[in-house]
Amino acid sequence: MDAAEFRKRGHEMVDYIANYYETMRERPVMSEVSPGYLRPLIPAEAPAEGESWESIVADVERVIMPGVTHWQHPRFHAYFPGGSSFPSILGDMLSDAIACVGFNWVCSPACTELETVVLDWLGRAVGLPDAFLAQHRNGENGHGGGVIQGTASEAVLVCMLAARAKAINELRAAQTAQGVQPEDEGIIMARLIAYGSESTHACIEKAARVSGVRFRAITTGADHRLVAANLTQAIAEDRAAGLIPFFVCSTSGTTSTCAYDDHVGLGAICNAEKIWLHIDAAYAGAAYVCPEFRSTMAGVESADSLLDLVQRHLLISAFNITPEYLRNAMSESGLVTDYRNWQVPLGRRFRSLKLWFVLRSYGIAGLQAHIRKAVGLASRFDALVRKDDRFEVVYPTTLSLVCFRLKGDNELSSKLLEAVSAAKLLLMIHTVVKGVYILRFSIGAPQTTEADIDSAWAHIASLATGILANHAAAIPSA
Amino acid sequence: MDAAEFRKRGHEMVDYIANYYETMRERPVMSEVSPGYLRPLIPAEAPAEGESWESIVADVERVIMPGVTHWQHPRFHAYFPGGSSFPSILGDMLSDAIACVGFNWVCSPACTELETVVLDWLGRAVGLPDAFLAQHRNGENGHGGGVIQGTASEAVLVCMLAARAKAINELRAAQTAQGVQPEDEGIIMARLIAYGSESTHACIEKAARVSGVRFRAITTGADHRLVAANLTQAIAEDRAAGLIPFFVCSTSGTTSTCAYDDHVGLGAICNAEKIWLHIDAAYAGAAYVCPEFRSTMAGVESADSLLDLVQRHLLISAFNITPEYLRNAMSESGLVTDYRNWQVPLGRRFRSLKLWFVLRSYGIAGLQAHIRKAVGLASRFDALVRKDDRFEVVYPTTLSLVCFRLKGDNELSSKLLEAVSAAKLLLMIHTVVKGVYILRFSIGAPQTTEADIDSAWAHIASLATGILANHAAAIPSA
Repeated sequence: MDAAEFRKRGHEMVDYIANYYETMRERPVMSEVSPGYLRPLIPAEAPAEGESWESIVADVERVIMPGVTHWQHPRFHAYFPGGSSFPSILGDMLSDAIACVGFNWVCSPACTELETVVLDWLGRAVGLPDAFLAQHRNGENGHGGGVIQGTASEAVLVCMLAARAKAINELRAAQTAQGVQPEDEGIIMARLIAYGSESTHACIEKAARVSGVRFRAITTGADHRLVAANLTQAIAEDRAAGLIPFFVCSTSGTTSTCAYDDHVGLGAICNAEKIWLHIDAAYAGAAYVCPEFRSTMAGVESADSLLDLVQRHLLISAFNITPEYLRNAMSESGLVTDYRNWQVPLGRRFRSLKLWFVLRSYGIAGLQAHIRKAVGLASRFDALVRKDDRFEVVYPTTLSLVCFRLKGDNELSSKLLEAVSAAKLLLMIHTVVKGVYILRFSIGAPQTTEADIDSAWAHIASLATGILANHAAAIPSA
Repeated sequence: MDAAEFRKRGHEMVDYIANYYETMRERPVMSEVSPGYLRPLIPAEAPAEGESWESIVADVERVIMPGVTHWQHPRFHAYFPGGSSFPSILGDMLSDAIACVGFNWVCSPACTELETVVLDWLGRAVGLPDAFLAQHRNGENGHGGGVIQGTASEAVLVCMLAARAKAINELRAAQTAQGVQPEDEGIIMARLIAYGSESTHACIEKAARVSGVRFRAITTGADHRLVAANLTQAIAEDRAAGLIPFFVCSTSGTTSTCAYDDHVGLGAICNAEKIWLHIDAAYAGAAYVCPEFRSTMAGVESADSLLDLVQRHLLISAFNITPEYLRNAMSESGLVTDYRNWQVPLGRRFRSLKLWFVLRSYGIAGLQAHIRKAVGLASRFDALVRKDDRFEVVYPTTLSLVCFRLKGDNELSSKLLEAVSAAKLLLMIHTVVKGVYILRFSIGAPQTTEADIDSAWAHIASLATGILANHAAAIPSA
């Protein structure tokens, strides 16, 4: 394909994408294929000779779309919203075209420098303290700064690895100072323990497993929050058992119920005990662009890392390995940032273009409007649930996730979800918290309207009527 | 931005990209900006209100392009080629538009199933044995299969973590069988050691650091290959010191010099000693699409992992953590693949669309032609170097990397690279192997022609004349 053909095919692809969004509402939100559906639809090996573009593109509707669950669909209420937009697609197109591999500053300076500045934009937009920024609000250079990781899971892993290196180095330094032979890293690692709550995202436990350290899920208090007293108790027990607490994850908006851990209380403990505090704001973080939702940010100044990072030298010392073929005058000068030392992989794409396009195209006001619209729709859904006394809202609805259930046995709500899934009109999932089965209704697709919310609720309420009738019929009369 | 505006802006972006490729040759290959160039060019924070698309796009040439080193440029000869193409850009556009998060099969079945099949296509295209495929060539289901990781570094990390889990589990099982209380995982981990050669990519040492295990770089033999005798000696020494060898990385095409480790010899040792053999073919792997380059694949059947994976259950057992909100009937049934258990992150994009588009658009013949063209150009450059008796080719040129230097002191070649960099006509980098300073000339951009190679050589040879004249003048006469 030469540039001339790319012009033609690129225009067609843009039109296909525009059309996909314009008509998405007409597609079923959830794929209905069975496992193994795809293999029989395409050949067992790559073609010997190149195929026509028409035949490739025709297979998108034939092979791919039947197997797609549409995360941008107005009736997608599962998990959390996926977050795509036209400006972000355009930014990624440019990133793919430039196709640089920005592991070092010198590989493409714009790739590094735009990321540094745009993450400062983001940090300021959500109201983070100067300590998290590469350049403070008064123009001074700071010791903070951010990096865009591939996923939130990698962000957590990278922070945990930095915390692990810090804990090991500090203990060995203390042993040396006491005139004791410092222990091997591996021996120390075997005693390190990281904490989160029962509701902390699974990526924290996975990061601990990758890092080769222990993980303990601490019981939560009211509204499923991790509170100071429970952390204090866990630390005391583990220290008594010879373990070394080194990392606490405090979450703003858990995946199950959008619970908020007590950053202030946990932060005070972490700072006193010299434990790394990481705040996971993968969900609620976006909402902090609206000042009215920032009360749950309190305590953020105690954190060593958020999604951005406070103490970048700790991260770099955990990762820096410089073979000869990566040496260059700019890196040696110390004047530049080499992001490869801020992450697990060497390679990295020009990711910040996407964020830059989105922030500029929408402006802070546009992002706020997007968040407020979703929160407003959740509030509308919350009110509908509360008006129906067969249901209960299980946790306070603070952002755009509503946690609700049919009053009574878990089985009722579980059957209701089965009925919703079978009816295929909308997509939602469940969770189980402290033995209670909960339905999660998450809102965030740009195309979702008030009418969608009202009809989703009418649909759910009507299915509930059937479930409850069957249930009543199944109970033998007394 | 609504769909109608996206149509317009998308067409413009496609045209910009086509034009970027058509006129790339006129741009300097290497960015000439100084550290910190970008921050003064844009505001210190995101705009309060959305900006016009025209103003955003205008900044691409004003702010971004001056800081871009063009990896797709016909005179880019640094590192290894970045590998982009128009069909891959189109595939990524579609992936961005669908914007699903494919951590579980049920999230978007096409995202998982296309990846499984297309990685079988790739495995067959490069001649891998059936053991690496999800479906064997005779149609039977296999125990292998691949996953597209974010980067080659993550692929290595994931394999090392699987190897770590396997080694720990086997040792604990053996201890239990002997009636001994099995040791704690951390205590075992502290004794695990991974191997590569002095020339193994830095990502292996980084993976070992992340995994919390030791790493030893073993001295290489002739042509900078890692050979069996040296591995045997290292294993014996380390076992004597109480360590547990568990992972060997054998490379097809090292970054410094495109050396090939002895997969056959190393594989025999690994199989006998029950050590995980990982073959890193991040560079040479692509060339295996051409049968004539496959002689260096010999021994691949001994590997536990390549970029694809042989023993997928080992990988999955190392990563599987399933919280309630990720439970679903399909995953519980065991009928489907959940790729989140094959990788560090939870989230994953619809990455296989890109590969599918590329494989179909070019066909095997098109990919072979691309590889053969680059290898032919390297052979042409190699011949030019050999005709000039001031120079030597340091390692045999097998693919599209030529390793050469000025005969004599390292300083001569180092000064030559400085002169090449200062002249800015083309971009190349150096390496140092066993104390010898080497110039690396790597070829792979689709637009590079024979005329580019000839003029690059004429340019380098002419700069060398100046360097040698200065050097001769600086030596006092005897």
